[in-house]
Amino acid sequence: MSITVVGSIAFDTVDTPFGGRERMLGGAATHFALAASFFDHVRIVGPVGDDFGEAELDVLRTRGSSIDDVERVTGGKTFFWEGKYGWDLNTRETIDTQLNVFEHFEPKLSDESRACEVLFLANIQPGLQLDVRQQCADARFVALDSMDLWIDIARDELLEVISRIDCLILNDEELRQLTQRPNLVSAAREVLARGPSIIVAKQGEHGAALITKDEFFALPAYPLETVVDPTGAGDTFAGGFVGYISRQLAGGLSSDVLRNAMAYGTALASFNVEGFGTDTVRELSASAIRQRVEDLWRLTRFDHLAVELAE
Amino acid sequence: MSITVVGSIAFDTVDTPFGGRERMLGGAATHFALAASFFDHVRIVGPVGDDFGEAELDVLRTRGSSIDDVERVTGGKTFFWEGKYGWDLNTRETIDTQLNVFEHFEPKLSDESRACEVLFLANIQPGLQLDVRQQCADARFVALDSMDLWIDIARDELLEVISRIDCLILNDEELRQLTQRPNLVSAAREVLARGPSIIVAKQGEHGAALITKDEFFALPAYPLETVVDPTGAGDTFAGGFVGYISRQLAGGLSSDVLRNAMAYGTALASFNVEGFGTDTVRELSASAIRQRVEDLWRLTRFDHLAVELAE
Repeated sequence: MSITVVGSIAFDTVDTPFGGRERMLGGAATHFALAASFFDHVRIVGPVGDDFGEAELDVLRTRGSSIDDVERVTGGKTFFWEGKYGWDLNTRETIDTQLNVFEHFEPKLSDESRACEVLFLANIQPGLQLDVRQQCADARFVALDSMDLWIDIARDELLEVISRIDCLILNDEELRQLTQRPNLVSAAREVLARGPSIIVAKQGEHGAALITKDEFFALPAYPLETVVDPTGAGDTFAGGFVGYISRQLAGGLSSDVLRNAMAYGTALASFNVEGFGTDTVRELSASAIRQRVEDLWRLTRFDHLAVELAE
Repeated sequence: MSITVVGSIAFDTVDTPFGGRERMLGGAATHFALAASFFDHVRIVGPVGDDFGEAELDVLRTRGSSIDDVERVTGGKTFFWEGKYGWDLNTRETIDTQLNVFEHFEPKLSDESRACEVLFLANIQPGLQLDVRQQCADARFVALDSMDLWIDIARDELLEVISRIDCLILNDEELRQLTQRPNLVSAAREVLARGPSIIVAKQGEHGAALITKDEFFALPAYPLETVVDPTGAGDTFAGGFVGYISRQLAGGLSSDVLRNAMAYGTALASFNVEGFGTDTVRELSASAIRQRVEDLWRLTRFDHLAVELAE
């Protein structure tokens, strides 16, 4: 299958308790593509400025991803984000956001990108997501991410595009915010009634949960003693999740396939946070990913040993 | 095996988005005993006042638990707690705490309670926990819970008693607070170096994680669409966890036994939060618990379906 991702390509400056980095390559489309490219051919759609160099393009090209639809805006500057993480890396403060070329971004998809079987609409303005969704009319699996800002200021547009996708991947608290339901299960059911057949609630260091009409599945995050930089973990998860689904789509989305997609997403996200920016996932080996999925299997399985209980 | 629990017996007034209850039976020892009594014989040690009636004693006696060491303080009033839960039940505010008979509590254990094989030191002043630990010299498995207050004002005493137990069961954030380590895995390793061989980090609606020298195991909470009252969930978890271990102690604490203990603790906690106070766990059937453990197995398992990955 071929995967198209539309989203941000960015320079990120991050400050963590373990040090910082300035203007490293980031952005949702970047992190997604680096993970998804292990599974299938990825086409990246997003704008960059004059400050985006050949070295950065090379990273985007990792594992054969196509950058034909990476739009270079002459005279423009690449999207920039600066953030500072708290003591336990579970909270972060945005120090600076410069939309730059992203401010007037109108996704232009080549015929090849439009012909994708699998589409990931990374977190951008819901109206643009809807436009891309309509351009990719033949996509067989469409997943979408969003954020609190769009739930606040463009909820109706967001619900419109959500009604036309297969899978919503959202932070746990955003799912509650979107539905105004405090309970994860009922929030997910509410969204399932609006169109998508798969909901993934990202829960940061606690892992992720998958909810469909028929089932609930939860997987903890891979336990790490050293987390360096959580930036991009959610998009890396999405890349592993959607990438695995893309690879298995021809055979149908069984419960086993969805659960493995969760495991591959979780494994890839865990590598992402072990280094700054794209450092780890860029250089990752296939065997390391497989090993981590095996580890996840090992540290979540139990065989029921029943005992006699008092009545 | 016989299990002794030392801790609070209380009246709780709670206010939740789904309604409230006044002066219902609660307390750590109560919730623990109701869960642990499914597995083995429980002896409850704790003080109550003149306001504690026969109806409440009957609940403590559920499934044969012994109340011989429930000390009735003449002229005293039972420990009282009042709390208000937030929108998503993940935050709560203490409105009122009246220590009452708990203020001058000195645990007096009968010979039978002292002769226990399994001991649970529920959250009370660490000096008292140490005293009880020493009284139960022959206990083969000792678990302990504590809270942020004691980490703040009695850290050294708490570390002293922790050095003499087998298993620490603590909220995730309290474990980080105790060790001043922001990372769960390294916080747990720090405590493992101080004596206990098993650490359980309770993560509320996200479930719980188990860390030993050799392994990490995480289990999500059982997904519920309706959570009514989270009061006592942690102690109910501890009752299921320690109760299961008590039952299997003779055969040794294998990885499989510890994982099943996590599953039974998780299952029992999920029932606890479905009703106010002790309502649900008191009336629970053995088959409902077994069924929920089976459900937990089903909603956490996956079989690895490997795919070819790009290099």
